[in-house]
Parts: sequence; C-alpha cells; structure tokens
Amino acid sequence: MITPVILCGGSGTRLWPRSRAVKPKPFIPLVGEETLFEQALSRCGDLSRFAAPVVVTGAAHLPHVEAQLGSAEGAQVIVEPAARNTAAAIALAALRLGDEAIMLVCPSDHHIGDPAAFVQSATAAAQLASEGWLVSFGIEATSPETGYGYLQRGEAIGSLGFRVARFVEKPDLDRAKGFLADGGYAWNGGIFAFRAGDFLRELEAHRPAIAAAVRAAVAGGREEGQRFHPDAAAFAEVVSESVDYAVMENTTRAAMVPADMAWSDIGNWQALHAALPLDEAGNVARGRAELVNCRNVMVDSDGPRVSVIGLENVIIVVDGDEVLVTSADGAQLVGKLHGAANQ
Amino acid sequence: MITPVILCGGSGTRLWPRSRAVKPKPFIPLVGEETLFEQALSRCGDLSRFAAPVVVTGAAHLPHVEAQLGSAEGAQVIVEPAARNTAAAIALAALRLGDEAIMLVCPSDHHIGDPAAFVQSATAAAQLASEGWLVSFGIEATSPETGYGYLQRGEAIGSLGFRVARFVEKPDLDRAKGFLADGGYAWNGGIFAFRAGDFLRELEAHRPAIAAAVRAAVAGGREEGQRFHPDAAAFAEVVSESVDYAVMENTTRAAMVPADMAWSDIGNWQALHAALPLDEAGNVARGRAELVNCRNVMVDSDGPRVSVIGLENVIIVVDGDEVLVTSADGAQLVGKLHGAANQ
Repeated sequence: MITPVILCGGSGTRLWPRSRAVKPKPFIPLVGEETLFEQALSRCGDLSRFAAPVVVTGAAHLPHVEAQLGSAEGAQVIVEPAARNTAAAIALAALRLGDEAIMLVCPSDHHIGDPAAFVQSATAAAQLASEGWLVSFGIEATSPETGYGYLQRGEAIGSLGFRVARFVEKPDLDRAKGFLADGGYAWNGGIFAFRAGDFLRELEAHRPAIAAAVRAAVAGGREEGQRFHPDAAAFAEVVSESVDYAVMENTTRAAMVPADMAWSDIGNWQALHAALPLDEAGNVARGRAELVNCRNVMVDSDGPRVSVIGLENVIIVVDGDEVLVTSADGAQLVGKLHGAANQ
Repeated sequence: MITPVILCGGSGTRLWPRSRAVKPKPFIPLVGEETLFEQALSRCGDLSRFAAPVVVTGAAHLPHVEAQLGSAEGAQVIVEPAARNTAAAIALAALRLGDEAIMLVCPSDHHIGDPAAFVQSATAAAQLASEGWLVSFGIEATSPETGYGYLQRGEAIGSLGFRVARFVEKPDLDRAKGFLADGGYAWNGGIFAFRAGDFLRELEAHRPAIAAAVRAAVAGGREEGQRFHPDAAAFAEVVSESVDYAVMENTTRAAMVPADMAWSDIGNWQALHAALPLDEAGNVARGRAELVNCRNVMVDSDGPRVSVIGLENVIIVVDGDEVLVTSADGAQLVGKLHGAANQ
C-alpha cells in the first residue's frame, strides 16, 4: 500500500484575484468542478493501491482542508505550527507513519490531466521506494521552461526508472532549450516516493539538525481527533529547506520515474488557460460571457457577464470587487500587482 | 436673445453597458463630472446671450431631464407623446416659442471641448438666423469620418458664414478622404439656428403634413407646470423625418457657420477615450485601476478595482453586473452585443 502525503503549503499570488490569501489556489475549482486539492485526493482514491492520506498543512488552511477532505477513513491532518518548507513537512509525515510506510509525496496545487498515467508512475515509484530508492517523478518536459528544476536521467534501474545523474536548478532559456533538445532531462515537479525510514535516515545523514528538531516536535506533539499538532516551540527551531536541497541532491540513492501525465503546475493564468478545454478559436469561458472576434481569450467570472470584442491572447478574471485583464505574456506579472501583493 | 432648444431623444446602445435604456448617454457623466445634458445646458448658461432653455424629450427620459435641469428660471420641457425624429421635435419648440424667437437647436449627447468657441459660433449663427437664414453648424472635419453627414461650403455671407452648396450623406471612406483633402467640407453635427417663424414657413412649404400635424398636437396640448404635453393622438400622425431631410436640404436659405470647438459625438467608447485627458502613455482611468505596461488603455469602472497588464488599444468598462472588454476597433460592434441589444 502507498500512503499519499499531500502538502498544502503557502499561498501564491500568481492566480490573484481568484486565488486569495483567504482562499488559496489548492482550494478553488480551477480545472473542472473539483478543487486541485480534491483532485490530488481523488488521484489516490483507489483503495486497492492507496492507504488513507496524510495532509500536511498550516492552521490558516485547516478549515479548507477539513471541508474538502471529506470522509476519508483513517485520514490524518498534520497541522504545522509554522511554515518550514518541504524537508520538515515530509519528515513530520514520515515520523507519524513509521519506518515501513511507502510515502507518495504530492503537492496540492498542481493539475494532472491523465490520472491513470499518474497512478502508473506512482506504482513504479513505490516499487523503487520499497527497494530503497528515493524517487522523484521526472515529468516529461514539453517546452523550455525556465521556472522549473530539471532532473538529468542516469542509468536505468530495471524497467521502472533511472538513477538521477544530476539535479539542475532553474536554468536560463538557452540551457532549457538545450535540455529539451537533448531529451535526457525531465522537469522536477515535486512529487516523490520514499520508504519513510529511508527518508529519515538520509535526512539525519545530511541535515541532522532538521531531523532532530522535527523528531522533538513530533515527540512533544498532541493528537486531536484526526489532527496532529507538533510541538510549536520545537518546530520553530527547524531550518526551512526544500526536500531537494536537504535530501535529494545529497543522497546516493536518488532515482526517477518517467511521468507523462499532462502535468501543469498552473503557475499563472496563462498556464491555467492552457490546461483547460478550448473551443476551435482557443477561447474558454467560465461564467456568463460573450466573445466576438476573439482568439485565445480566457474569461473566468464569478458573477457579472463579460462581453469581449476583438481581442487575442487576453485573460479576463472577475472575482468580487476585483477585475483582472492581462495579456497572456503579462500573466507572469500578476503577483506584482498592488491587489495581489497587498492582500 | 437666443433660446436653446435641447433635444433629448433616443437611447443608443453604443456606449453600453454604462449607457443603458434606463439611463441613457445624455444623463451620465462621461467627460468630467457633469453629464452631457448638463454640459449642453451650461454651454448656454450666459444669461446675457441666452434665454431659458426648451427641452424636448420623451416620457421615458423625463425623470432624468427634470432631475438634471435644475432651477433654470422659465425653462420649458416639451414631453413628446412618441418619438417622431427631429423635424417634428423642432417644430414643437418653434410653435411654443412664437415666430420671432431665435432658436439654437442642440443635441444633448455630444461633447464640446471648447465651449467659448461654441458660443462664438452660436452668436454668428443667431445673427444669420435673424437675417432669415436657416443655419447649420459646420464642424471642422479633422478625420475622414464615414459616420457623419457633410456640408459643402458655398459662397460667403458677409464675415459670419457661408451658403451651404450641398448636403452630403454619410460618404464612403474614399469620398470622406477627398472631402478632408479638399478642405471645403465640414461635418454636419446636428446643431442649428433658425428664426422660429422661418423654420415653420419652410417646414410648411416642404412638409405640409408634418407642419399641420404638429400644429394640431400643440393646439390640443396641455400645460402642467413647466411641462407641455402635446396631444398624443395628433402627434401620432406625424411622419418621422429628420430636420435635414425635411427642411435643410430643401430650403434655398441654408447657411452654415464654421465651428472649430473640439466637438465629438462620443459615438462609441473609442471616441470617448479620444475625448478624455490622457496620461503620457495614452491611458485614462475612471474609478479604481492599476495599469502596468499599458498603452492607449481606457478603464471606466463604477466600483470594482480593475488591474490591467500588457495591453494596448483596449477599453474596459465595468458597470454593475456587466463587464465590457473591447479592442479600440471593436468598439463599433458594442451595440450588437447581446447585452446591449437585449436591454
């Protein structure tokens, strides 16, 4: 059995105004009727393969998590007393689950268009994890993205995956184009599989202070129904570090499984537009809208009718008292708007 | 003294959604804090030149007219029982004012950026009217507009104006460019000066049926405070015709005065954009707005904040439950939107 560990961290500003501090990206329906968090749970819903999920989140998101978690039998919610990045979040889950658990660590703010392919990659990753590998999903790179880390494929491990030859931080455009042409590189999408005990051993080896502080936080924590509250004072001592930096780039047992599953991090409105089903002119509308002489226009309105004439590559979002109108290219600047920055 | 006759007719759809059937274009503040109707009154506010105004309107607009007319001493409001175009509307005012009145007929949905130039042209037009001419304002043509009628200048009448050599209906673009290059053509903006008796004599000569029906409607009408209600049954018989067709194109006494007064009919959102004071990037915002990397963008919001990134030549209007986003060129299609057509 595989235990899904769903990380519900921070709150981005790049999908403002729909995503706001009070209701961030994982908890709003962006693609289809379910929220991204609900989709993350659904993808691991096959009880013949997956155990009940562990959700790691902060107090601010707890109401959303509990409202959307539903009635998953045996689910646990670990409530972080403070945000300390992914190394610590995963360590909390590993300690709660015990050494033998096979963990599948998933962000809650990504979209996966092909859930069957996800399950296939997850099954392969879990098999490698049970053999002692620390496994990253190597997401098929389909464009020269400069916003992602890359994994360079090493030698094959049987038929299931590969060693990771190298972790590459966000490259510039020329390097990214080279990776794409090379074919031996995949995106690092932040999905991992580990045996809990292997992860903790590697964390202790490479970041003993983080491991010790998280152990103390768990030892001093308390259960409250399905919730677990680590000790706040102990957890406050944890250094914030990503699992990539703290563990994956240091271990000699890093592996990857290929994952070709229509993945998107929905990192901005343009990425969401690309993830949605479009009409023949590339347009898509959620809510009441009339589009005349438009191409590649996206409308997302929570109420008012939006009428659009003669535009191309434009995104329009109406959310309560905020209206966003941006070029597709401008979508990457949304987080810098006053409205997004000063929520 | 000159008596302003302000025509408050129909309700366009081209400035939807700000202008709606329930509150049409003349009665909303489009340029500055005053409405176009209030500006039309203000332009004729110099009591040393202008008598109290006569407003001709329909019952639907009466509440707006009376709310915005203010306390103009001696003002009259003629309430048309039905819309019968400008020949009849002007005839109603002429009959109420008596033969000797010098009428200055003004639409209420135009903008004039240079009110002093307007008064100068009005004074010249009134002088010619007192000499028995039927006078059109010949508005300096500054672009090859295909949406306006044109007046061709004929021989001079002293220093005040010219005979009209010819009235030209809306030309195609090639002809309009020719008119502009020629320099002897002006736009017909629908502003006129007549002696009331001269107008009625010409109307009787060329459209005796209209003249007779309007006379009957006035004879059977009733006063109600400052309002005058023509007889509905009699007025229903009037044929709808514009003053241009019915009178100006037929009279041998047609004259024009040049008018260079920053005139705009504000015929669509692009025209309104052009009439407003712009920042150095050509942008203008009414209401809360943040514009990033924008050029020639206009925002007009009645409440929600509008954030715009990376757009050029785009107009955004937020009005209650409607949001309009159009290219500048697309502004001419606004009237065909479902929202505008089905108010």
